[in-house]
This record gives sequence, C-alpha cells and structure tokens, in this order.
Amino acid sequence: MNYLVTGGAGFIGSHLCNRLLKNGDCVVCVDNLQRGDETNIRGCIKNAKFKFYKVDATDQESMEAIMRDQKTDMVYHLAANTDLWESMKDPELEHHCTFLTTQSILNAMRNTGVKKLFFSSTSVIYGEQKGSPFTEADELHPITYYGSAKMASEAYIYSFSYMNDIDALIYRFSNIIGDKMTHGVIRDFIFKLKNDPTHLDVRGNGYQTKPYLYVDELLSAILMIGKDFNGVEIYNVGATSCTNVRFIAEAVIKEMGLEGIPINYEDKEMGYKGDIVKYEYNVDKINKRGWHSIMSSDETVLRTVKELVREFGN
Amino acid sequence: MNYLVTGGAGFIGSHLCNRLLKNGDCVVCVDNLQRGDETNIRGCIKNAKFKFYKVDATDQESMEAIMRDQKTDMVYHLAANTDLWESMKDPELEHHCTFLTTQSILNAMRNTGVKKLFFSSTSVIYGEQKGSPFTEADELHPITYYGSAKMASEAYIYSFSYMNDIDALIYRFSNIIGDKMTHGVIRDFIFKLKNDPTHLDVRGNGYQTKPYLYVDELLSAILMIGKDFNGVEIYNVGATSCTNVRFIAEAVIKEMGLEGIPINYEDKEMGYKGDIVKYEYNVDKINKRGWHSIMSSDETVLRTVKELVREFGN
Repeated sequence: MNYLVTGGAGFIGSHLCNRLLKNGDCVVCVDNLQRGDETNIRGCIKNAKFKFYKVDATDQESMEAIMRDQKTDMVYHLAANTDLWESMKDPELEHHCTFLTTQSILNAMRNTGVKKLFFSSTSVIYGEQKGSPFTEADELHPITYYGSAKMASEAYIYSFSYMNDIDALIYRFSNIIGDKMTHGVIRDFIFKLKNDPTHLDVRGNGYQTKPYLYVDELLSAILMIGKDFNGVEIYNVGATSCTNVRFIAEAVIKEMGLEGIPINYEDKEMGYKGDIVKYEYNVDKINKRGWHSIMSSDETVLRTVKELVREFGN
Repeated sequence: MNYLVTGGAGFIGSHLCNRLLKNGDCVVCVDNLQRGDETNIRGCIKNAKFKFYKVDATDQESMEAIMRDQKTDMVYHLAANTDLWESMKDPELEHHCTFLTTQSILNAMRNTGVKKLFFSSTSVIYGEQKGSPFTEADELHPITYYGSAKMASEAYIYSFSYMNDIDALIYRFSNIIGDKMTHGVIRDFIFKLKNDPTHLDVRGNGYQTKPYLYVDELLSAILMIGKDFNGVEIYNVGATSCTNVRFIAEAVIKEMGLEGIPINYEDKEMGYKGDIVKYEYNVDKINKRGWHSIMSSDETVLRTVKELVREFGN
C-alpha cells in the first residue's frame, strides 16, 4: 500500500509514519516543517520505502503531482496548525494551515482519483455544549478558530466524498499526549519551571478537566480500521476517564523534584478564552468497532510527564 | 441604521435592499454582478440613502474600507454562488463565492468592530438524513459543494462570534422563490417550453417534493427579528407544506397555455446527483419567535409560476 501522510513530521504524523513503515507499507511524508521537525522522522529517512517532501499541503499542484507520481492509495491528512495561542491573535493562520490544507487535499484527491482519506478532527469541534459526554451526533458549536477550521474541513469532506465516491474516516481526537508532542499544558509547566523553579503560575483555577489519551493508543485506533470504512464515518477517539490541571501541576512538580513549591491558581474557571473547561467523551461507537483505551487518563498523564521531564526537564 | 447587504443586486438581496430603504434606513449594496444584476436595484439607485459598490466580497480590504467609511452597523451577508450546476463541475467556484466571501466578511467585521451579522444558510446543509422534517439540532451532512460551503461558513461564524463578541442570526432557507429569481425548476421549465413547446422533459420521476416559500414571506421573517439576537441564533425558515415537481410541471404548462402536451419523466428518483429528493421542514423555532408563513407551498408555486410566465413566458 502507498500512503501519503500530511503533517508527517509532526507529533502524531511522525508516529504514524513509523508505524506504517513497520507494517511494510510505502509512506510519503509531506510537511512544510512549520510545526513539524525533521528530527521526528530521522528514523524513517533510512528506510527505502519512505519519501519526504518539504511541501505546504495548500500547494494543490504539488500535492496532485505527488499523489500521481507516488501512486497514492490513501491519504492520512494530519497537517494543521497546532499553536492555538498564535491563531487566537491571527485567524488567518488557522484558516491557512487547518482549513485550506484540507480543501487542497480534497481537490487533489478529486483530480487524481485517490479514494481513501483519513482526517484528524477534534473534540474541540463540539465547543460549548449544554452538557457532556460528547457523542458524535451532538451539535457542533466550535468557539475557537481551530475548532471552526476543523468543522469546516468536515463540511467539505462530506460533499467531496459524496460527489467523487471518496471514503473518509474522521476521528475526532480528544487530548492526545505523548513523546514528541509540541504543545499543551504538560510542556508549558515543564518550561515554566525550568525558567523559574521557585513557583508555578497556572492559568485558570486548575479544575479544567479533560480526557488524555496516549499517542500509541490513538495509533492503534487508526491502524485498527485501516482502509475498512465506507462513505463518511465519524468516531470520537479518546480516553473515557479524565484528569484535571491540578493533578498535572502536582505530577510535573514531583517529577522535577520540586515538591513543596507554591502553585498559584487564578480565580477563574477558564484558562484562556475559547477553552472548553470540562468535558467527558463518549467513545461507545469506536468501542463497538473493537477499539478500547488501555490506560486511564491519569496513567497517561503520569507516563507522559515522566517522558517529557526526561526529555526537557533538566 | 447603516446596513451593508452583500449580494445586494441578487434575487433575495435586492428585495432586502428595497425593504430596508422603505423602512428609512441607509443601505450599502455590495455585489460583484456575477449572478446579481443592476436592473434589480434600478429602483434603489435614486434613493439618497442607497449606495452601490461593484466589489467581490472576498476582497477583504475593500470590505473593510466600506464598513469603516459607511459606518456599518450590521451586515446582511447574502453573497453566494447560486448556480449549482456550475459548481458541481467546479467546486472552486463554490469555495470562492459561497465560503471565502463569508471568511472575508468575518475578518472585515473583526477588524472594523461591526457586531451584528445576518447570514443566509440553507436547508441543503442537512443533506442526506435518516428522515425529515429537519430541525435545527439535526446532524449536518451536506452532499453538494454548495451545502458544504454554507456549513463551513456557519462553522467560521461560531468562533468569530465567540472570539469577537459578534452576534449572528443564521437563517437556514428552504426553497425560496418569487419575482427576480435567477434559477430553479420553475424557470427551467419555462425556458425549456419557450425553446420547444411540443413537450416537457423533466429530470427525475417528478416526485421530488420540497417546501417552497415566497420571497416576501422570507423578508418578513428577516425584518421581524431585525437586530434583536444575541450570540449565534439559528432558525429554519420555510414553508410547512410541500409541493412536488409534477404539480410544478403541470402548473407551468397550464399557465403557458400548453395543456395536453406530453411530459416525459425519468425512471429515477433523483433529478441530479446531490439533490435532496424529498424533505419537510420543521419551523417551530421561528414560529415561537412570532413568524408564521401565510401561503401554502402550492399557493406560492402557483403565484410564482404566474409571475415568471408573465415575465419570461412569451
């Protein structure tokens, strides 16, 4: 099989490239290296079945040429903006990196006849709801530019799928963490404490509570279905349990050997405008397809804290 | 009040410009005249409170200058592609005219501080559902590029509204017909019969059944709420009864004095790929706000057939 992975030098993308190569498949990695990093695919480069193109996925002409030349069977479209702070100030960034990449990929698939697409959507798409756990049939009310760009991408996938007989598998990721991650609260805390180990300032009151899933578990969910999907199939993928920010703050401080330092919380629920402060995730649908998470959200956080402190903490 | 109407020289937009002027308000009409027509706004031009700009709404810089110079209080964003046949062959057309216009308008509002938006969405956004009548909380599964571009527009409205305190009123129009309309089955039949009055070829089996609402009734629904909305409010707006294509074919033939000619139906449900063959519309939510349709769908069709045959039929 010939796979094309956009955002393939990024956090989740590079893990995916590795796993596909391990299965013996051919992998073309496309990344503009804006958020992705060549060191993430160092291990892949030696493999004769791996090719890397430094291309922005919005460059539709190049994407078409790559799909044609490399005889792409299926696209894993993971390219997106990952810096939510930046896009809050500049929605154009999100529009370009998260939405226009999808539009370009869909047009390129339409023009070259590629019929299988995996798309990485997000729990953020549900936005402000009357209540969670979120299920796939819930209304979509994104409140960040990131969530909107993902919802707009899903919107385009529907008609491109229907009009061109493209099958699309959409996973709405909850918070995915692990080795190589480029952003998020665990990294933030580690870098804050490296900078000033006397105390930790936390955005919000620390009761923000979300389900954290380890990246390897997400990859198992992706590879489990493989190419076995038809029309547009949408699944929530995430942990069933949740972890709050206070737990994370204490875990990072402990792992860095800084027990006892003061943690300063703010007197407000929301760490930043657009944050979904608390949510749970209904993953019954993907469970029925045969995938179940293994680690609890707390276990996932503890493992990732250990790994990231080892990598960055000293 | 200073209103800006995009697509203001089009079918619904030009009716809206007229009604707003009649209320004594100032109206700036923006239209690229690709689908709109200057003859539609002939009556407005003489009014000192009316200004027309031949500008494409994707030209964000011009839109910002207009909003600033004209001290816009509220935008009615109606600009969109209306030629679904063309966009089926060329999704880029839909992307540009229907989605990127919205993206541009939202950015321009964000940058100039305009806080009130009306957006014309569509019943097509519901796409293929397990059943109708469609209600606002239903899942969105558009299957045409047009429906996807409208859903993507709604997606962007959510976050731009939340992040910039913009209030947005979204009406999902059912089939709107009446004087000045530029496309649709009634026009198609009239022009076919003008071209060859010996018979009428109909796409599909004629049992495609939809709710038709007269444009004046839609305008009453738009003006009823005016600026009285907060956050993002979404309403279905349409007729509660429905009309099938056989009824329309017979009405057009009768009005053109061609009774007795053969009508040739196809042996398939769908007139074209992407058509939603049958649907009913739940408008309880807008009913509760105080708007109710007056004419039945059949009455609306008969009135419009009369008007269009008078205009084009001879």
